[in-house]
Amino acid sequence: MNMLVDGEWRTDAYESTGDDGSYERQTTPFRDEVRDEPDARFQPEAGRYHLYAAYACPWAHRTLITRALLGLEDAISVSIVDPYRDADGWQFTPDKEGCTRDHRHDADFLRELYVRADPDATCRVTVPVLWDKEEETIVNNESAEIMRMLDTEFDDVASRDVDLYPEGYRDEVDRIIDEIYEPINNGVYRAGFATEQGPYDEAVDDLFSALDHWDEVLADQRYLAGDRLTEADIAMFTTLVRFDNVYHTHFMCNVQYIREYDNLWPYLRDLYQTPGVAGTVNMAHIKEHYYTTHPDVNPHRIVARGPDLHFEAPHDRDDRPGGPPSDLVAAASTDD
Amino acid sequence: MNMLVDGEWRTDAYESTGDDGSYERQTTPFRDEVRDEPDARFQPEAGRYHLYAAYACPWAHRTLITRALLGLEDAISVSIVDPYRDADGWQFTPDKEGCTRDHRHDADFLRELYVRADPDATCRVTVPVLWDKEEETIVNNESAEIMRMLDTEFDDVASRDVDLYPEGYRDEVDRIIDEIYEPINNGVYRAGFATEQGPYDEAVDDLFSALDHWDEVLADQRYLAGDRLTEADIAMFTTLVRFDNVYHTHFMCNVQYIREYDNLWPYLRDLYQTPGVAGTVNMAHIKEHYYTTHPDVNPHRIVARGPDLHFEAPHDRDDRPGGPPSDLVAAASTDD
Repeated sequence: MNMLVDGEWRTDAYESTGDDGSYERQTTPFRDEVRDEPDARFQPEAGRYHLYAAYACPWAHRTLITRALLGLEDAISVSIVDPYRDADGWQFTPDKEGCTRDHRHDADFLRELYVRADPDATCRVTVPVLWDKEEETIVNNESAEIMRMLDTEFDDVASRDVDLYPEGYRDEVDRIIDEIYEPINNGVYRAGFATEQGPYDEAVDDLFSALDHWDEVLADQRYLAGDRLTEADIAMFTTLVRFDNVYHTHFMCNVQYIREYDNLWPYLRDLYQTPGVAGTVNMAHIKEHYYTTHPDVNPHRIVARGPDLHFEAPHDRDDRPGGPPSDLVAAASTDD
Repeated sequence: MNMLVDGEWRTDAYESTGDDGSYERQTTPFRDEVRDEPDARFQPEAGRYHLYAAYACPWAHRTLITRALLGLEDAISVSIVDPYRDADGWQFTPDKEGCTRDHRHDADFLRELYVRADPDATCRVTVPVLWDKEEETIVNNESAEIMRMLDTEFDDVASRDVDLYPEGYRDEVDRIIDEIYEPINNGVYRAGFATEQGPYDEAVDDLFSALDHWDEVLADQRYLAGDRLTEADIAMFTTLVRFDNVYHTHFMCNVQYIREYDNLWPYLRDLYQTPGVAGTVNMAHIKEHYYTTHPDVNPHRIVARGPDLHFEAPHDRDDRPGGPPSDLVAAASTDD
């Protein structure tokens, strides 16, 4: 393992594999919450929080999209790490295209932030990290929870009236996020990091069964939860947008491309064309990260060419009920 | 290198890479010829020759197809090696499905035949090998030359009147075999065995430019050389039939699947459905070979699932001039 143990950095392998050759994702330890309540320790305030993210990482990508859709760009500042993660973990390389310095502490490595937050930290060093500038500590580093906080607790701070966790849909959104996690979001990793045939086969079976299922669902409705764009779609999007160029070949999830699906592919384009989303997709970072960071999967670190994907092609899903939040569409047309 | 040097077996890496990270294929050294001439050392005779082949290997596959189309099964016996090639090279594992013993010498390893043919051999040990039972030596181990010999020198021995190198087409067939070799047949290896980004990119560019070109050509004509099935089609076939399940992912030739091409995919099915061809395609051997034999490319030797390919689906290319040799079609209908 490549992780912090009692504040010290240990280098071995960043990812972990069980005795049976299956991939086991570690849990994240910082689980505090920003809450819009008078007695909350972390309250939503413009300018108080900073987000550490990677364009490369699908989990961090969820939080970047949420921030963009809600119009939290001015309220929550962002630093972007290098897509290439070597044995020293995520790092800051401000001279590289699309990357930034650590705007808060000018750290060289993300792990420095973890040690600053907790000198006794025992964990993997991952993105995203929601940092509190006031207490100079990590609020949370679990992507689904950060996404939820940005979505539900920052109403008074967000510049747009966008709700990705709407009343009447919440149970369904929670259910879908949970349902797609293991076979799809984490499933591609289970396939790619398997070191034995059995766990790989099981992951691929689960993955494509789930993709087939959602492809059917999306024949009749515009979004995963029905007629409303929700957090569930964001959770699905960050896996789908990486699929054809990375997971398909690098993680050998090669039964078929997303672009070969009748509904998942137009759905993916629909989400990509939702105002604010495209700006969070950095395919160069995504490809560089995966192909160069896992020598155990891709020894020569050659970045595969991959198909040309036309995310901007018409999606023709407007005839289904629902659509992007009106405030987003209005903002986009003002920008034009 | 894993090769014979002065009759001794040396183990290093079976494939070779230049200083610039590009893949360099070694030449084969046994280049004698069977000729249908009175004074020829090796004359075409039923029962005299034995073919050592691998279902896995595209070069050996060419000779298996030629043998099947010409009806040389009774005249030229065959031994099939194990698809898995470890540091000791191709081997005989008669208990494994689709494999046979070495019918001639009960050797354990193919290299033993090479040493038997030439105790001072200095070469890679490859399939196919055309073995002369009379002189107990290797006639030739270059696939294109063996294919040509079977095709042109065994007329009196072959059970069918099939000519894959017909008068009037010969220059074109030679030209095409030469033209597709570097970008396509060898191009997938150049992509897959590249150890630097530059040579990989160049190989992928060459490969897909050539595939795009031939896809266009095949819009208007049934076969590569026009209206006749020729050796050029066999040379193309053994690469195309491996493409979507192996080269696409394992060698990162992932710009698009063959099954996404408008003409190459029906063309591939047309060839597959040509009487005699399907029986030479052992996809289990093909997949096992590539995914398990190159740990430098695929460290955990996991066999990727790959797409389901329906080679038996209608190809709808009958409306173009030409078709399979009539003697083949007649033989197939007699079998029914």
